[in-house]
Amino acid sequence: MPNHGISEAVIKRLPRYYRYLNDLSEQGVERISSAELSKIIKFPGSLIRPALMHFGGFGRKGYGYNYRSLYEEIGKILGLDKAQTMVIVGAGRLGQALANYVRFEKRGFRVIGIFDSNPELIGSTVRQCTIQSASELTAFLDNNHVDIVTLAIPRKDAPDLARMVTEHGVQAIWNFTPVDLNLYLPENVVVENVHLSESLMKLSCDLQRIREKDS
Amino acid sequence: MPNHGISEAVIKRLPRYYRYLNDLSEQGVERISSAELSKIIKFPGSLIRPALMHFGGFGRKGYGYNYRSLYEEIGKILGLDKAQTMVIVGAGRLGQALANYVRFEKRGFRVIGIFDSNPELIGSTVRQCTIQSASELTAFLDNNHVDIVTLAIPRKDAPDLARMVTEHGVQAIWNFTPVDLNLYLPENVVVENVHLSESLMKLSCDLQRIREKDS
Repeated sequence: MPNHGISEAVIKRLPRYYRYLNDLSEQGVERISSAELSKIIKFPGSLIRPALMHFGGFGRKGYGYNYRSLYEEIGKILGLDKAQTMVIVGAGRLGQALANYVRFEKRGFRVIGIFDSNPELIGSTVRQCTIQSASELTAFLDNNHVDIVTLAIPRKDAPDLARMVTEHGVQAIWNFTPVDLNLYLPENVVVENVHLSESLMKLSCDLQRIREKDS
Repeated sequence: MPNHGISEAVIKRLPRYYRYLNDLSEQGVERISSAELSKIIKFPGSLIRPALMHFGGFGRKGYGYNYRSLYEEIGKILGLDKAQTMVIVGAGRLGQALANYVRFEKRGFRVIGIFDSNPELIGSTVRQCTIQSASELTAFLDNNHVDIVTLAIPRKDAPDLARMVTEHGVQAIWNFTPVDLNLYLPENVVVENVHLSESLMKLSCDLQRIREKDS
């Protein structure tokens, strides 16, 4: 059942919902009313109830939902019900930080390769992965199933590298470079951007505005 | 002139516009038509022209805009016309990666302090900054002007730490923890979130969906 007929806007919020429900689960909560749920996920209860219904009749109004089925269903839509393999290209500080982020493993994302072109990094180990030469990347992609490639490389290298990995079958790129890779890639490739500089500028902008308001 | 009467939706896009215009500048481009500009920033020319007008009459239709005044104006709105100071709390791999991100310095963001509670990290140096004990953070905030605090710490510590730094005058938090800090903070504090896990889950979700579409 592709995407359960849920709207694009809800799809976009699913990772957040999943995080909230995961928090509930870690707190040992068993059931939750749609009113409470709507408080947590900041979404009107009147909109949550029909959305919940998409996931099947696992709740009874007034009694509260056993949110665990919702949690699991959302996990499936997010692809978290199966292990996914990831390769990180760029083993600088950011690439290494990402390789070491335990939270990803908990969600089933497994780093199976790290690549860099810097001879000083090649051969050293990051979280049970030996950093390999970037020149070996295409062979690696041909010989291993790789779901996601994470790009933590200089911007000038990003378009060519993104094109190359997609030519070797990769359909998902987690992009930390300040480049709009979509412009360079076929339509059946998905790109998720983490633009750190833009995020910081947005914060700076909001700070100026709140200061102007205060003054 | 607070925010120049520009809509919230445009404000949100300013960091991206700034990045595009910065790219033009680095490529040595002098003038650009609103049609070209709209192609780059993927926004209809009919909407760009009035937006440009907010920034003053620095262009002549048909002749092309000298986008540099636009670039500078956007920079001002983003607060990039003056240096801003940043403190990073959490000197793990992510905190260190952020401290070393050169692109921020180019935009005028200067890291003036890095703090951690891990005795093994305290005293070592990251980009000309000595990692200080987290216990010294409040004194540091009282004795230095700090515009932005970046949180790259375990989630359980995030609410208390965020509250504490805002009590010591900080109004902007760049939040890398998977916690909605707004819930814990006064209204005159701005928070910008980088939720890495959510970003990765969104990518995974998009990947599932494009695979379903392809199959």
